[in-house]
Amino acid sequence: MTYCVAIKLNAGLVFLSDSRTNAGLDQISTFRKMIVYEKPDDRFMVLLSAGNLSISQSIREILQVEKLKDHEEDAEAITIWNAKSMFDATRVLGSAIRHVYERDAAALKQAGVDFNVSLIFGGQIKGEGMRLFQVYSAGNFIEATPETPYFQVGESKYGKPVLDRVITPNTPLDEAAKCALVSMDSTLKSNLSVGLPLDMVVYEANQFQTDKVVCIDEHNPYFKMMHSSWGVKLREVFDSIEDPTWDDGKTDVPLMQPTGRNLPLKKITSPKEKLI
Amino acid sequence: MTYCVAIKLNAGLVFLSDSRTNAGLDQISTFRKMIVYEKPDDRFMVLLSAGNLSISQSIREILQVEKLKDHEEDAEAITIWNAKSMFDATRVLGSAIRHVYERDAAALKQAGVDFNVSLIFGGQIKGEGMRLFQVYSAGNFIEATPETPYFQVGESKYGKPVLDRVITPNTPLDEAAKCALVSMDSTLKSNLSVGLPLDMVVYEANQFQTDKVVCIDEHNPYFKMMHSSWGVKLREVFDSIEDPTWDDGKTDVPLMQPTGRNLPLKKITSPKEKLI
Repeated sequence: MTYCVAIKLNAGLVFLSDSRTNAGLDQISTFRKMIVYEKPDDRFMVLLSAGNLSISQSIREILQVEKLKDHEEDAEAITIWNAKSMFDATRVLGSAIRHVYERDAAALKQAGVDFNVSLIFGGQIKGEGMRLFQVYSAGNFIEATPETPYFQVGESKYGKPVLDRVITPNTPLDEAAKCALVSMDSTLKSNLSVGLPLDMVVYEANQFQTDKVVCIDEHNPYFKMMHSSWGVKLREVFDSIEDPTWDDGKTDVPLMQPTGRNLPLKKITSPKEKLI
Repeated sequence: MTYCVAIKLNAGLVFLSDSRTNAGLDQISTFRKMIVYEKPDDRFMVLLSAGNLSISQSIREILQVEKLKDHEEDAEAITIWNAKSMFDATRVLGSAIRHVYERDAAALKQAGVDFNVSLIFGGQIKGEGMRLFQVYSAGNFIEATPETPYFQVGESKYGKPVLDRVITPNTPLDEAAKCALVSMDSTLKSNLSVGLPLDMVVYEANQFQTDKVVCIDEHNPYFKMMHSSWGVKLREVFDSIEDPTWDDGKTDVPLMQPTGRNLPLKKITSPKEKLI
């Protein structure tokens, strides 16, 4: 499987992806799932992909040459390299997905394989603000908003709680990068189909380029520190919360309540007893 | 959906279940998913269920009268009320599942509904130690061991990391109860199809009965305290970990590595550039 996350903040964008690809537990490989498109002073875009690797690799290849014509009279077709907005660039990506679908979906279906791909595409094109999209296998897409400033694709559940607790549009860039790494760390711990190395890119608003591009493996000093600190401190928090006590007299926060709308379960004490 | 968790410790057993049942987002009800079977000084058993409610209710009803005959010459058929071991009692449960399957599965299939049920069944029968089983929809089952001392059914991913970090066979009973509640709290936060009230039962080894049975709703003082403390303290831990810095000179734990086997991603800077 895969885990990718992208966060849109007022200060910039954070992208993080793992690199494990598996076709069954006995066929594990490393494929990087992030591509950075950068034309300094003009546009900066990042594509993250989850799902069938043959589909996402084809999409990435086709995206480089994909052209979209809105009207016959348009002089120039739209590509990701000349699109005037991230919305248009994402439409080009949707069109690339549909081209791969036309080419491969029927044969995949015959082989019993779904046309399964999920993409995150975000960045900034000169003339507008940063934008972040999640793109589905039908080529349709949704955009991140201040209420939901992040997208995840792949194995998203383990790493979602910390994002929900921390991320708002006002979160500083480095704090959001830390949050993405904690989210990834929880996922790595619980799911074997997500694995190192990680690719991380942090983009600062209105720069149209970045040098904050890093590949994080098991020797990365920061990731090692964060991984061990998080585990130890989480345990300290757990220990610092009072255990439940069953004797109401001994605590301000009894687990047993004297009364309430919801009564404790009735016990079944013999084969003859009715359940309800 | 549902979230149920059961933990087997040297000191006893902990069972926790939510009570939300949904057939689509617009049809939400409260059904309790735990049943306690208790014959003081002889046996104590708890059944937790996830999956199709019509199936699990039928299983619970049939289980009360289900009989298993190993050999024709056996004088007495085995029921959950006379079984000499939890293994045999769980076989009776498996048999009850198969009876419901024979009765309903074909008609469910015609209606496009899977025969979907997952059960956790645990307890103690006089003459042997405590045992804990996860029972599948085919009536087969697996038993918890010291290496894997807990089972979850339903929406298990959000609540798994804390169980993996805390639970061992030596964990004290009240601490394990706290851990189950934290695990449930994470699940409630992330998944609307899991909801209050909760049913919790804590059983102390070799007692063959318990009075630690509680129904926890939104007014429960302990659950409210734990819910808010966990959120606040988790955030404090997050804040206490250093943010990543991109300038190696400023920290002992740089995120950027000068060298390494895995190089940072090459950027794509024009339509003509090759991807690999």
